[in-house]
Amino acid sequence: MQPIMTEADLATFLDREFPQVRGDFAIERLTPDGIVMRLNVAERHLRPGGTVSGPSLFALADVAVYLALLARIGPVALAVTTSGGVDFLRKPEAGRDLIAEARLLKLGCVLVVGEVLIRSEGQEAPVARANMTYSIPPAR
Amino acid sequence: MQPIMTEADLATFLDREFPQVRGDFAIERLTPDGIVMRLNVAERHLRPGGTVSGPSLFALADVAVYLALLARIGPVALAVTTSGGVDFLRKPEAGRDLIAEARLLKLGCVLVVGEVLIRSEGQEAPVARANMTYSIPPAR
Amino acid sequence: MQPIMTEADLATFLDREFPQVRGDFAIERLTPDGIVMRLNVAERHLRPGGTVSGPSLFALADVAVYLALLARIGPVALAVTTSGGVDFLRKPEAGRDLIAEARLLKLGCVLVVGEVLIRSEGQEAPVARANMTYSIPPAR
Amino acid sequence: MQPIMTEADLATFLDREFPQVRGDFAIERLTPDGIVMRLNVAERHLRPGGTVSGPSLFALADVAVYLALLARIGPVALAVTTSGGVDFLRKPEAGRDLIAEARLLKLGCVLVVGEVLIRSEGQEAPVARANMTYSIPPAR
Repeated sequence: MQPIMTEADLATFLDREFPQVRGDFAIERLTPDGIVMRLNVAERHLRPGGTVSGPSLFALADVAVYLALLARIGPVALAVTTSGGVDFLRKPEAGRDLIAEARLLKLGCVLVVGEVLIRSEGQEAPVARANMTYSIPPAR
Repeated sequence: MQPIMTEADLATFLDREFPQVRGDFAIERLTPDGIVMRLNVAERHLRPGGTVSGPSLFALADVAVYLALLARIGPVALAVTTSGGVDFLRKPEAGRDLIAEARLLKLGCVLVVGEVLIRSEGQEAPVARANMTYSIPPAR
Repeated sequence: MQPIMTEADLATFLDREFPQVRGDFAIERLTPDGIVMRLNVAERHLRPGGTVSGPSLFALADVAVYLALLARIGPVALAVTTSGGVDFLRKPEAGRDLIAEARLLKLGCVLVVGEVLIRSEGQEAPVARANMTYSIPPAR
Repeated sequence: MQPIMTEADLATFLDREFPQVRGDFAIERLTPDGIVMRLNVAERHLRPGGTVSGPSLFALADVAVYLALLARIGPVALAVTTSGGVDFLRKPEAGRDLIAEARLLKLGCVLVVGEVLIRSEGQEAPVARANMTYSIPPAR
């Protein structure tokens, strides 16, 4: 599970392929079995009561596993999310970014499974946990 | 599970409480055990290859169960999503809105569980299925 | 999604391949997009308070989607469960069998996704809902 | 999240309350935020091809989070599983027990959420991951 792309490679890829979310996510660092990502929390991610919206947390988990995966197989493959689940555990701290630690549990030829813990920056107790499954189309 | 809010009540509530998603979602109709919602698919929901993003589908399922629930308990309660899961089944049809049919399976005092099928408008085969659980805080 | 195996074919297959669960499950009938299965509730499925154990409900959902799938692709393929999720909604009625209605939502070349509603026999309100994903290994 | 029951307390409780699964599960040890459990793999847990059945893995994850929880709140409360999800990652090694490491992520007044990694004993690569949510009824 050694990465073949660097953080800079991934950032360039993200910026080019996903212009819709430009500025939302930042790559903190690759880890031996995954990646650490940041959600730059802004007004558009918030909901009544000041909490971060569920879809924003889902998006953070989704992109984290996606980039953890691409870092290992390279940017050519068109991987697609086949399923994802999230447990929302606590309200995030107001005014703090969210940090997602994603870990690949299986990097198969067809299916890739990762799990994610999301925390408010600097806090120990997790805000959410997620699992994401990607499928990799057969090479041609 | 008889609704106590109308479609117009729900639309007013959605517009007031969730200005961030104004224009994304429309209420089609309340059903005996749920609701039908529309995602007005726009450029910002798309991903490379023209597919609708996973977080957009998650958001559609989330808001559908939320409004199905509020229609039955009224707009006062602060219900929060505690968990959600999505299976992505097929690529949506290009240029079509997405229609979500949400159904409440349990409307308990503490937990509410709903399931959702999402289709491209006018198509039979579902694009995604989802399950969402909300918790209702104790009344004060 | 037309079945190519009959209820009798499936029962013979189940009995031969899964002797460990012989007597637990019965095939009620194939449906246009799925199957209806019965769990013959016995002492070994119960937990304190007279409820049916979570693993027994998971097993019922799992076998229902598995047989719904085999009925369409035939008994040769070695399909394996890749993921499953269950929401437990209500305590089953004491002294009644459980009836699972499984529906295939996607019957792909690689992944098969089904959803299941489980009820106490003769009751309307569901006891549990489940989703199950199977992967089909490439033909040789 | 300091335990108030010992491993011996939990074993006595398990043996008394869940006689149906006597011999299936063993408590390895309590950990700072969870528990390690063993499934004594036997013929009745196996499926064609020598794999451990999905429901057996679900049961292992379920009991692990349940005991991790009881160890913290005591054996009086009647906690019930409200939902659970499992990703099956690899075929277990033949002839080895399964070891589950469960970790509590949230120990709330109403909902308790845990995650579980299951491995064949002595192996690094996980066989399955799971998430389990329990609800704790209000004290009277």
